[in-house]
Amino acid sequence: MEKVNIAVVGATGAVGREMVSILEERDFPFADLKLLATERSAGTVMTCKGKDYEVEVTTPDSFAGIDIALFSAGSNASKKLAPEAVKRGAIVVDNSSAYRMDSEVPLVVPEVNPADIFTNNGIIANPNCSTIQMVAALQPIYEQVGIDRIVVSTYQAVSGTGKDAIDELEEQTKNIANGEEVESEVYPHQISQNVLPHIDIFFDDGYTKEEKKMVNETKKIMGDDQIKVTATAARVPVSIGHAEAVNLELKDKLTADRARELLDQAPGVKVVDNPAENEYPMQIDAETTDEVLVGRIREDKTVDAGLDLWIVANNLRKGAALNTIQIAEELVQES
Amino acid sequence: MEKVNIAVVGATGAVGREMVSILEERDFPFADLKLLATERSAGTVMTCKGKDYEVEVTTPDSFAGIDIALFSAGSNASKKLAPEAVKRGAIVVDNSSAYRMDSEVPLVVPEVNPADIFTNNGIIANPNCSTIQMVAALQPIYEQVGIDRIVVSTYQAVSGTGKDAIDELEEQTKNIANGEEVESEVYPHQISQNVLPHIDIFFDDGYTKEEKKMVNETKKIMGDDQIKVTATAARVPVSIGHAEAVNLELKDKLTADRARELLDQAPGVKVVDNPAENEYPMQIDAETTDEVLVGRIREDKTVDAGLDLWIVANNLRKGAALNTIQIAEELVQES
Repeated sequence: MEKVNIAVVGATGAVGREMVSILEERDFPFADLKLLATERSAGTVMTCKGKDYEVEVTTPDSFAGIDIALFSAGSNASKKLAPEAVKRGAIVVDNSSAYRMDSEVPLVVPEVNPADIFTNNGIIANPNCSTIQMVAALQPIYEQVGIDRIVVSTYQAVSGTGKDAIDELEEQTKNIANGEEVESEVYPHQISQNVLPHIDIFFDDGYTKEEKKMVNETKKIMGDDQIKVTATAARVPVSIGHAEAVNLELKDKLTADRARELLDQAPGVKVVDNPAENEYPMQIDAETTDEVLVGRIREDKTVDAGLDLWIVANNLRKGAALNTIQIAEELVQES
Repeated sequence: MEKVNIAVVGATGAVGREMVSILEERDFPFADLKLLATERSAGTVMTCKGKDYEVEVTTPDSFAGIDIALFSAGSNASKKLAPEAVKRGAIVVDNSSAYRMDSEVPLVVPEVNPADIFTNNGIIANPNCSTIQMVAALQPIYEQVGIDRIVVSTYQAVSGTGKDAIDELEEQTKNIANGEEVESEVYPHQISQNVLPHIDIFFDDGYTKEEKKMVNETKKIMGDDQIKVTATAARVPVSIGHAEAVNLELKDKLTADRARELLDQAPGVKVVDNPAENEYPMQIDAETTDEVLVGRIREDKTVDAGLDLWIVANNLRKGAALNTIQIAEELVQES
């Protein structure tokens, strides 16, 4: 396909809006663009590459003539509508968790496992935001020396929850400044002036679904069932950008300098690691970058071959919309 | 000593003020109280147990007749003035980092190593805030099964830096809400809407002084040179309360249930671990508690005997002022 027909499902959400801007920024070669959402958002007009598009209600027939459908409307919408899109000949790139662990569905970060894209049966899954930035940063290290175990703690932005959560943080912050009472609707507790060690639902063993996503998706994307991952996922009062403190037990020694070299050469990764000048990855810098920022690279001497890292990325872009569109770009290039 | 004469050095600072309130709250048996600070704060009047005290400038002679001097005025002040206090017969409990790693000076968390208090040569050091809450929570686990390795990532409040930092976070948050430019003076970068993986100075190996404190102070307080600690310390946009994601490799298996039991019985520790009801330790709850809150207790299956924990405490109280006064209380009881 030279020029393809694209649909964006969930076009008016936080990630959907990023998708539409990224299609424009990267001059994605689409012939036609269909913006889809629920009834509530139908009629909204959005602009892409200088042209206005009216958002339509998603129905099975919305996908007639569509080549690639980018889904970001939650798991239920994906489960219901992705098969309909596939039935009508579209390839679905799905940003929800609905199909990620389905053995028939490739789970892809283009910097890590691009070839998996072409094993699809109509659906390709986009990983969870926290996993994408972690595996993109770890792949060059993994290729060089192998990774035995990962201990990760996350510092995740509220925009991962959606636009409502950004508004709630803003509103609560204002309430606190004015000495007013704080109301929490999106989260079970106040998020302003607080950190919540709670993302997605809890399982019986005490881990959250977010934490398990990091464990299971990492294994699937890296194609290594032996890699051990333990995660603690926490929400911080920041609007955009996820940070991660990552401790690695490597299969073979790697100096911090060599790790910096490897990461410097890696696609989609930028090393920001100059403590003498107070330079390290930060969420405020992730707002304007598409790369995964890696810094605070330290040799952990408590194990034979260990590294500590600090990884930051824009959760709405590399963690969601951008990764989805990178997958779509690979599809277009190959066809 | 039945009733003792107490001096608080740095009485007008964030920690000093907490010390004065805690002396009142716990009805500390002092005969006289002397509040000391720099010239800038001299003349300030503060109240304790219904009596007004005028803050005086600290000089060597301020310590004449003082039995216990509580220092929280920074390392330089401690280095200069603590020996003067000792020379005049006072026992110094020092909240700065000046003497913590001095082999002649005990470093004490009363829930962990109370007996060390009485090995002092005039000075007793209060550990770093992040270390205090971690070792208080780990001690019951350590006693039961032993700990081989700790991987900790911190989520630290700005009040650890001082009152200026609380003001800076508040001011920046206001600036952002009003669309105004943000200025950073206390920190090298914006802290509102951001996380800084940078606390205290950097060393050549890339670790910060804060991270090394957690490594070295843990070994000294727990009296175990073999315990391995690797830390990443980060500042989050929260005013009060430090959180920590802690991964433990134990010497022997411990179930999450048994860990909860042990922690439930431990002094100064409160288990908050009921995910089904969205109950877990949070900074907003630490504002009003003196206990170290422990939750999100999970069995980490990536190692033979592992646990993941989430630990929260009030950095100004248990992390500083309260721990200092607990040490002073032990001194009074024993004398």
